[in-house]
Amino acid sequence: MDKNEALAVLADVQRKLFAFNAASSSLYLDGVTVAPKDTSEGRGVAQGVLAGEQHKLMTDPALAEALAVLEGCRDELTLLQRRQAEELGRAVKQLTRIPAEEYMEYAMLTNEASDVWHRAKEASGFEMFRPCLEKLVAFNRKFAGYYDPDKAPYDALLDEYERGVDMAQLDGFFAALREKLVPLIRAIGEKPQPDDSFLHRHYPAEAQRRFSDYLMEVLDLDRTHCGIGETEHPFTLEFTNKDVRITTNYKEDDVSSSMYSVIHEGGHARYELDITDDVQYTCLAGGVSMGVHESQSRFYENIIGRSRPFVEAIFPKMKEFFPEQLGDVTAEQFWRAVNKVEPSLIRTEADELTYCLHVMVRYEIEKALISGTLEVKDVPETWNRLYKEYLGVDVPDDRRGCLQDSHWSGGSFGYFPSYALGSAYGAQMLRNMEKDMDVWGPVGRGDLSQVTAWLTEKVHKFGGLKTPAQIVENACGVFDPTAYTDYLTKKYTEIYGL
Amino acid sequence: MDKNEALAVLADVQRKLFAFNAASSSLYLDGVTVAPKDTSEGRGVAQGVLAGEQHKLMTDPALAEALAVLEGCRDELTLLQRRQAEELGRAVKQLTRIPAEEYMEYAMLTNEASDVWHRAKEASGFEMFRPCLEKLVAFNRKFAGYYDPDKAPYDALLDEYERGVDMAQLDGFFAALREKLVPLIRAIGEKPQPDDSFLHRHYPAEAQRRFSDYLMEVLDLDRTHCGIGETEHPFTLEFTNKDVRITTNYKEDDVSSSMYSVIHEGGHARYELDITDDVQYTCLAGGVSMGVHESQSRFYENIIGRSRPFVEAIFPKMKEFFPEQLGDVTAEQFWRAVNKVEPSLIRTEADELTYCLHVMVRYEIEKALISGTLEVKDVPETWNRLYKEYLGVDVPDDRRGCLQDSHWSGGSFGYFPSYALGSAYGAQMLRNMEKDMDVWGPVGRGDLSQVTAWLTEKVHKFGGLKTPAQIVENACGVFDPTAYTDYLTKKYTEIYGL
Repeated sequence: MDKNEALAVLADVQRKLFAFNAASSSLYLDGVTVAPKDTSEGRGVAQGVLAGEQHKLMTDPALAEALAVLEGCRDELTLLQRRQAEELGRAVKQLTRIPAEEYMEYAMLTNEASDVWHRAKEASGFEMFRPCLEKLVAFNRKFAGYYDPDKAPYDALLDEYERGVDMAQLDGFFAALREKLVPLIRAIGEKPQPDDSFLHRHYPAEAQRRFSDYLMEVLDLDRTHCGIGETEHPFTLEFTNKDVRITTNYKEDDVSSSMYSVIHEGGHARYELDITDDVQYTCLAGGVSMGVHESQSRFYENIIGRSRPFVEAIFPKMKEFFPEQLGDVTAEQFWRAVNKVEPSLIRTEADELTYCLHVMVRYEIEKALISGTLEVKDVPETWNRLYKEYLGVDVPDDRRGCLQDSHWSGGSFGYFPSYALGSAYGAQMLRNMEKDMDVWGPVGRGDLSQVTAWLTEKVHKFGGLKTPAQIVENACGVFDPTAYTDYLTKKYTEIYGL
Repeated sequence: MDKNEALAVLADVQRKLFAFNAASSSLYLDGVTVAPKDTSEGRGVAQGVLAGEQHKLMTDPALAEALAVLEGCRDELTLLQRRQAEELGRAVKQLTRIPAEEYMEYAMLTNEASDVWHRAKEASGFEMFRPCLEKLVAFNRKFAGYYDPDKAPYDALLDEYERGVDMAQLDGFFAALREKLVPLIRAIGEKPQPDDSFLHRHYPAEAQRRFSDYLMEVLDLDRTHCGIGETEHPFTLEFTNKDVRITTNYKEDDVSSSMYSVIHEGGHARYELDITDDVQYTCLAGGVSMGVHESQSRFYENIIGRSRPFVEAIFPKMKEFFPEQLGDVTAEQFWRAVNKVEPSLIRTEADELTYCLHVMVRYEIEKALISGTLEVKDVPETWNRLYKEYLGVDVPDDRRGCLQDSHWSGGSFGYFPSYALGSAYGAQMLRNMEKDMDVWGPVGRGDLSQVTAWLTEKVHKFGGLKTPAQIVENACGVFDPTAYTDYLTKKYTEIYGL
């Protein structure tokens, strides 16, 4: 096989992977949006076959040969070709380390676990989910050894979600957050809270839908390439950089819920839509890592969306959508309300400041589970203890405790830290952005085009053409959590007059 | 390869075909329902790959060997196994005649054509669509030669949609219709028309949606297994016998439009939902042919849905959904209005009687296009001339003329006759059903369970366990168009007092 043949194999495999992925996404999207209730069986069979075909494609000896050929002529490749070979090569290497039977067994386990978790959460009974979680942890400990036997198991898993990140870095990162944020939250607790009762007036879904359309305009999300749907849990799903879908969930008694979901998912969508055409239909399409993706969604949601200039810019228009509900409310009141800090039970509903503490609880538990220092049976007790310790709240039941997130049931251990890392990356990006240009003037006029242009140039456009570490370096410089703690301290000191 | 190995290959291939089909359907469904406007490119690439994978699967030498082994031990197979081997064997034979590259090129072409057709229709400009249609016709002429070089090309295509049907039979069938129906329509033209102005009062989409829910109940369509969506053109799509989707289109100035779409598509869905579990995930899943499928949809829509007993049964309930619009209307008036005969421009809006003439226009044009006696550029002129000749109407533009249907843009040539054949099958089924049981008593009480039970027993349950010809024979006896012309003559003689 010569270089050109190897490149042809690479292109063919990637095109097929794209297609199987798109097919799988489409079946998933259907399942969570319009599919009738009792129809999962057929989609399950189809998804199983598609997963099997993807596995077959990735473990095909012809691909291994092509990758070896390209490895041998690395210097003759264009950047685009080289990065494809690197990323696909890495994925193949990781996948082929897992014996095929274990891989299939695991696919079936996660499928079952997702079901069991749903029922356990509904019943608020951790014991129902415990046997599944034990198996999931055992598999992941084993997989970690396959991925990199020289690393501590949890480090090997972290590396799968956010390349280059490890416990040493995260322990330092979270310690810095704990040190700065816990006193900040305590100080806020002693201050009077802003009135946010007007957020909970009646906001009809229909008016909220029109408001979403407006928000998508503000984010410059071209509706001919970006759709918006409704699901229980908001998410973003990309087919290509010309076809992205976001979803939201309308709560008629909380206008800020969908509003910030749309801006958050809109940030993910913005990233996907801004990626260069060059990488489409290849393994370099899509955002580069979970952490970088979350940095973008949370940048638009929190750093921009909950800023005073942004709220002031859009509030007059917002009042047109909700004249009765917001007639007696000022932009300043609204801004204070959407920045109210209150330790709570549910991560996805947490405010910007306490959010990272929710992530920290999960990090500590995952680390201990995968390291083998915590038994699965002790998860609820540990969860509840850490919530009390970090957030000062009492967890009343498993549904609002250790069963609240779907991640573990899907087999993701090492994903959660990306949420906190993303927030920290975002704060560093803001610091650099402010050096490069006037951020808040345009944002204060409701014009995000320059913010988006900066992020596109530093982050979005590359897709996987750079590694996650290169992107972070490119947009943030050397990772420095104090940018994040400084940002939060400054913001909340002003809001709460500390 | 022994018998059991061959059966294992057969099972594996069919499961994969199911998955690729489901994936492809899901992408299609997304495209015509929720996908943003300019996103067809990615789905086109995915559909192309999926079509290629299906092609590879069907042309795999291992499958050919398995089919040969099973052919050799035909007598040892169960009916289920034998029919799978027969149908898959036939499909493989037809497909392996088409070169793989042409097959993939065609898949991409139909995807693009669907988009172009949509835009051409919107702009009412046939010229926009002409280049696509030329390519589609050229491909189909070539495919016809691959399917059966001994047949006239259009006969070869007809055989793909309705096994055993050819131009000789259809020419006779349509001649019989023309002979009986044209004078009938002429006689009706001299009679006073019923007042149907109340159908065109304002019927809000939201109330129509609730009315659809009721109609689905009447058809006993279990909503946990059968969804209803909204598209420009109503259709039915099945994943399995546990997951069927229908769509409709609400016209606020015509309550009968969506009403009869729902009953029509509901008939298709009824068929799919009633198919035995035994054939799921095999090539025998789904209705046996287009003609038999249309016989069911049109049976529910016209023979039942536009019958006096049915209208009388549901009309009181219908008035509850539309109290203002139908307060002054009687069931008899409504029944007469939805059976008004009036030559018109749009096939899907045509009345039961003139409908077949719309099909006949398409049949004549397809026959000439595929036979090579008509050029694509002359389609609009021919279309308009035939509409004048058969229906006596002047076609004002392409949107309401030759661009009205999606079939050709999807690559279907030879499909249209199935609509007329299905109507004829239905009339024969009614004749037999009336011999077996009291049809109209229960229908007059709004109870379709016995009609559905008869159709399930004679048609639905088999899926592909019998051939189309066997199903028609089973439910109709020997094909006889006079059952259809008699049915129409009797019905309209009563309505118009001829």
